[in-house]
Amino acid sequence: MDSPLPFLKTTNRMINQRSNDDAEVGQWPKRVAILGVGLLGGSVAMAIRRFNPKVELVAWARSDKKKSEFARLDLFNHIADSVDASVEHCDVVVVASPVNHIAELVGRASINSPASCLITDVGSTKLGIVQSVDCDRVARERFVAAHPIAGSEKTGVFHAKDDLFDQKSILLTPGDFVSPRCVEKAHLFWRLTGGITQEMTPKDHDTHLAVISHVPHLVSSLVAKVAPPEARALAGSGWNDITRVAAGDPAMWTAICQENRAAISSELQRVREEFERLQKIVDTADDTALRAWLAEAQEIKNTPHSS
Amino acid sequence: MDSPLPFLKTTNRMINQRSNDDAEVGQWPKRVAILGVGLLGGSVAMAIRRFNPKVELVAWARSDKKKSEFARLDLFNHIADSVDASVEHCDVVVVASPVNHIAELVGRASINSPASCLITDVGSTKLGIVQSVDCDRVARERFVAAHPIAGSEKTGVFHAKDDLFDQKSILLTPGDFVSPRCVEKAHLFWRLTGGITQEMTPKDHDTHLAVISHVPHLVSSLVAKVAPPEARALAGSGWNDITRVAAGDPAMWTAICQENRAAISSELQRVREEFERLQKIVDTADDTALRAWLAEAQEIKNTPHSS
Repeated sequence: MDSPLPFLKTTNRMINQRSNDDAEVGQWPKRVAILGVGLLGGSVAMAIRRFNPKVELVAWARSDKKKSEFARLDLFNHIADSVDASVEHCDVVVVASPVNHIAELVGRASINSPASCLITDVGSTKLGIVQSVDCDRVARERFVAAHPIAGSEKTGVFHAKDDLFDQKSILLTPGDFVSPRCVEKAHLFWRLTGGITQEMTPKDHDTHLAVISHVPHLVSSLVAKVAPPEARALAGSGWNDITRVAAGDPAMWTAICQENRAAISSELQRVREEFERLQKIVDTADDTALRAWLAEAQEIKNTPHSS
Repeated sequence: MDSPLPFLKTTNRMINQRSNDDAEVGQWPKRVAILGVGLLGGSVAMAIRRFNPKVELVAWARSDKKKSEFARLDLFNHIADSVDASVEHCDVVVVASPVNHIAELVGRASINSPASCLITDVGSTKLGIVQSVDCDRVARERFVAAHPIAGSEKTGVFHAKDDLFDQKSILLTPGDFVSPRCVEKAHLFWRLTGGITQEMTPKDHDTHLAVISHVPHLVSSLVAKVAPPEARALAGSGWNDITRVAAGDPAMWTAICQENRAAISSELQRVREEFERLQKIVDTADDTALRAWLAEAQEIKNTPHSS
């Protein structure tokens, strides 16, 4: 199959030509395991399958129910009962569990995967995960944490799609002990999914994401929560969009808040101070200030904010 | 032309058959003036034109610049310099100016329009407007305030479209002095645009809209404002949707806050209290409470909230 992203053929050939630990030219990765098959894990599998129909995809199923669910997908070549069996002979392991289980699964995946295997994840928080993995002498050498800025308020593998990552930012936050070779592989792997990779420190990641994703999510949920039914009956597209992400999985977002509490807490305080400023402007009928306040927000929305 | 909404043919015939003050069967309204041709005023004109290609549409242009702008639209039959000239012989006058000018324009429109003319508006606030118009003995008998729950963060007639109101709620808030006949006409007129009409008091309208539209708009602007450029570069679809309406016109939203200050101020306080509750939950690491808090928001989003 021709790659949907032709430039990758060259990159892929380059990485394979320079390496003894990988499969033949243009065929990396040959085997990929997904630990945690949901919206994101399923979409990674589908995107890699789109790039290379011959790739072997392995799913880890924690229960017989999950096993038969995954079997119906017509996506995976193998469904394994244990992490150990899932990661055997793999070139890449993708940990796509809730953020509070990622570090543990990365450690577990490092036990039975080949030394050349890249371990990556999809978690929305990074600092705690990278710090945890850095305490594991085996795992830390092959783990490159990743956060694809892609997703949906919908959850579950049945919403997965092969183009979820196309042209989306994939933030890589490598730790201090990972080999440069492994970081290079992480860039390649995530580009194969259709994404655009960039690196930053885990700390910068968590600070920025608290501001641009985690606290906005909480605020969206707050706007949804405070509306009584008689007002919700009058909701227009504005309210519907502002509160769209409030339909997201409460367990997943609770885990994100656990993992990134310090940055979220400090950002909530900053938002609270701006909220109090707004209240004062409205309550004192300072309409000149209100107009300037709104104009500043409008200007931010009208400024392209690509990286 | 066949009506895109066949049931209206009957309603229209009924209203015409029962009336001496209107034009022939199925031909009401024959002449409609738009005072304030922007996104909403332009869309009303286009929707009425869609229903009846023979309707005469009049635009009021405040300047030569506007006059030539409107002439290029190929939408209006007449472009008038003054309100008096615009409303002459009209069956319906639609006031689509910013909310702080609506009451004045309604009064002005009542001077030279026929006694049988319906005057309506599109303002996002209602109580102040209806109270003002109720002081005008002529205008109050023919004014039925309306708020179509439709719009966009985009402004200007060049974004207008003939299906903007299709299946959208149109809230009618008649005052105490308007004739029932005029209220009936308002229902018909707004249904002709494709909307679904419902009545409520101006006060209930303003209270509900502060909760479901005005304060969410301010919160959306706040979320946009607090994000520094380095974080905005990492924005995903969540942030983009939460802050979509923050691109709206600052002057228009300042006017809305002026008109509905009491309800907005009280709703801001309620949101602030919920915000403080959230902060406490996060800061004290009460993850059971956080999960329940998020689940409540999720349930609201997953509950159909049609009226």
